[in-house]
Amino acid sequence: MKNMVYIQSGGPTSVINTSFYGAIKEARRHPDKIGNIYGSIHGIEGLIDDEIIDINQEDDEQIELLLQTPGSILGTTRRKLPKDIHDPVYYQIIENIKKHNIGYVFVNGGNDSMDTCYKLSLLAKELGLDIKVMGVPKTIDNDLACTDHSLGFPSAAKYIINSINEFAKDAQCFKVGKIHVVEIMGRNAGWLTAAPDLLPEDTRPHLFYLPEDDFNMDEFLKDVQKVYKEHGYGLIAISEGINIKRDNANVRVDGFGHAQLGGAAAYLCDVIESKLNLPTRAIEFSLLQRAAPVFISKVDQEEAIKTGETAVKAALEGHTGEMIIFKRVSQNPYKIEFALADLSKIANAEARVPENYKFDKTRMSDAFREYLKPLVQGEIDIKCKDGLAQVSKFKYVRVK
Amino acid sequence: MKNMVYIQSGGPTSVINTSFYGAIKEARRHPDKIGNIYGSIHGIEGLIDDEIIDINQEDDEQIELLLQTPGSILGTTRRKLPKDIHDPVYYQIIENIKKHNIGYVFVNGGNDSMDTCYKLSLLAKELGLDIKVMGVPKTIDNDLACTDHSLGFPSAAKYIINSINEFAKDAQCFKVGKIHVVEIMGRNAGWLTAAPDLLPEDTRPHLFYLPEDDFNMDEFLKDVQKVYKEHGYGLIAISEGINIKRDNANVRVDGFGHAQLGGAAAYLCDVIESKLNLPTRAIEFSLLQRAAPVFISKVDQEEAIKTGETAVKAALEGHTGEMIIFKRVSQNPYKIEFALADLSKIANAEARVPENYKFDKTRMSDAFREYLKPLVQGEIDIKCKDGLAQVSKFKYVRVK
Repeated sequence: MKNMVYIQSGGPTSVINTSFYGAIKEARRHPDKIGNIYGSIHGIEGLIDDEIIDINQEDDEQIELLLQTPGSILGTTRRKLPKDIHDPVYYQIIENIKKHNIGYVFVNGGNDSMDTCYKLSLLAKELGLDIKVMGVPKTIDNDLACTDHSLGFPSAAKYIINSINEFAKDAQCFKVGKIHVVEIMGRNAGWLTAAPDLLPEDTRPHLFYLPEDDFNMDEFLKDVQKVYKEHGYGLIAISEGINIKRDNANVRVDGFGHAQLGGAAAYLCDVIESKLNLPTRAIEFSLLQRAAPVFISKVDQEEAIKTGETAVKAALEGHTGEMIIFKRVSQNPYKIEFALADLSKIANAEARVPENYKFDKTRMSDAFREYLKPLVQGEIDIKCKDGLAQVSKFKYVRVK
Repeated sequence: MKNMVYIQSGGPTSVINTSFYGAIKEARRHPDKIGNIYGSIHGIEGLIDDEIIDINQEDDEQIELLLQTPGSILGTTRRKLPKDIHDPVYYQIIENIKKHNIGYVFVNGGNDSMDTCYKLSLLAKELGLDIKVMGVPKTIDNDLACTDHSLGFPSAAKYIINSINEFAKDAQCFKVGKIHVVEIMGRNAGWLTAAPDLLPEDTRPHLFYLPEDDFNMDEFLKDVQKVYKEHGYGLIAISEGINIKRDNANVRVDGFGHAQLGGAAAYLCDVIESKLNLPTRAIEFSLLQRAAPVFISKVDQEEAIKTGETAVKAALEGHTGEMIIFKRVSQNPYKIEFALADLSKIANAEARVPENYKFDKTRMSDAFREYLKPLVQGEIDIKCKDGLAQVSKFKYVRVK
């Protein structure tokens, strides 16, 4: 009987621990096939450095709280492994997998993490080892290929929609309004920036700037001025990844080699104030859009649990080198089916917002709203104590 | 029989419409004494410009939704009236009050708004007019004098505590951590900045900087470095109002003559990066800390309703020139009594965080935590539709 290990990778989402929860629950339904349930600390780094914990040492109550715990309970990483699958680091991972008698590896992450997952499955096959490696989709950016959507995106979209609705009501109650530039996560894909198009007219952003669009500063300023003239204030949704040519660009780079973005809203507000002489407010949702449990959509939560379960089932059926994907089989009522896609098609691919989902810079299309609307439905109950939403506390007992 | 008018003034809170709700409910219990219920659009400006709406034209369902509606439903203002109560603008207000047969004026606001309220009551007395003017306390800053706390502060504190708890979990899951500088509202008083001291040790900020403290940049950098060395990341809570001497200060001023703050966290992050070479993230809660209905504390909501009711009752009993205050008569169990304080003691006074509520820069005192803990208790149910928290939509029918 083999053990399993679970890996959380890349940026967290508000349901990243929920798919882990689903995987734990399913694994426990097969005590005849799966031995111990392990967690790898800080993503793949746990398997490199032999930092593995035993999930069965954690209390049931803490496992239940995974459903509302922000961040990655196991820790995460942005470390990108070498391209060559024969690099010593991969052999080191395989050694630790063998040492702990692991037969099932689950990697929960986005594009880059699926690449790691893919390479590991290739090397295991090449070495003739009986190790099943399965991908669990996760990214608030919603840019994973082959799947209708990614876990975490619906809840982040719901956070953004509700938050814009809230501060729009606040922004509107002053006689002299401001231009509010809201910066939303999404490096190369504008799914989240487009989400507030679901809002009713009176709180919907007046303008949307996605990373898929060309950004022209002169046109932007002209549009902002027009909005202010018409409405006496403005709500502008921009992606952190819009392509502004900045004078003072001093860009940092993360472990995956991506530019560390942020500050685009503040920069645009500076430009609006100096060129148009309009009052502004820059708003950046920052980490809360991927962390806040209060806006987890019920649909996202249910799908996350089922995805974790499905990944374990698929591995037990002998699948490897694949990721769980969602196929939308019905729109009204909304219904998805779970399926598998080969990791080679997903690793490093990117799903951007398609042309037919945009209408113009002031609206997305009906098709986009039909796509998004069912995903944000339903609220979950949050367990609070003394006014504070509770989070899991793990003991993190290391496996010797 | 006289009519009543309700005024919302200054920055909104997440329960500003809740005290209005309480006032409406109470007024409707006295159809023999109070005629029409009016609302003044954009604070005192509605009484100056004769922009008055009839609340009885609004549907009951929309009145109920006031309990979870962000922003000021009537609109607000930061306009400060002249010092001289014989300025023509006050006579203009009195004219409109007489024109609409108003006998009861309720002003819901903070320090500056209570000043307006006070002057209006003085002039009415001087002119021998039977107009009762009552203040309803409101400010997330919690800096109103004479009262145990102000409406809106508990819910803003609850938002901040929960949000820091959430993003701390996210921040902690990376092997290489960042210094997170969180900028919290509070111009001259650090009540909200101190609030996250209620958090458990693992998500509590490592350092607190209140406007009441002297701020020394060299010491700040030394402290930040020490935190990073010890914890591998950092959580620093700063008030928007801390007294940093900036090189590039280019301060705007609002209608009350206050500096428009913000950007302190971004500025400090720049300094930390350049002087200490540590990775940082600036987080500004911006408008959400005073708008988000999901973290309205049950205690704040119940007190807001009761305050609105009490203000109406007091005016009917003949009180004028006073504000509703809270006296804490028992700590365990928490219990407050409603009382009245003369507006002359409140107008333009400021309640800052007292010395005995601070321990050192890493902690507040036990006394502070005892003070705050009962205020953030209890959650409220939010009505959602299609994943979106619902808000009141008024018809705003003008009174001729």
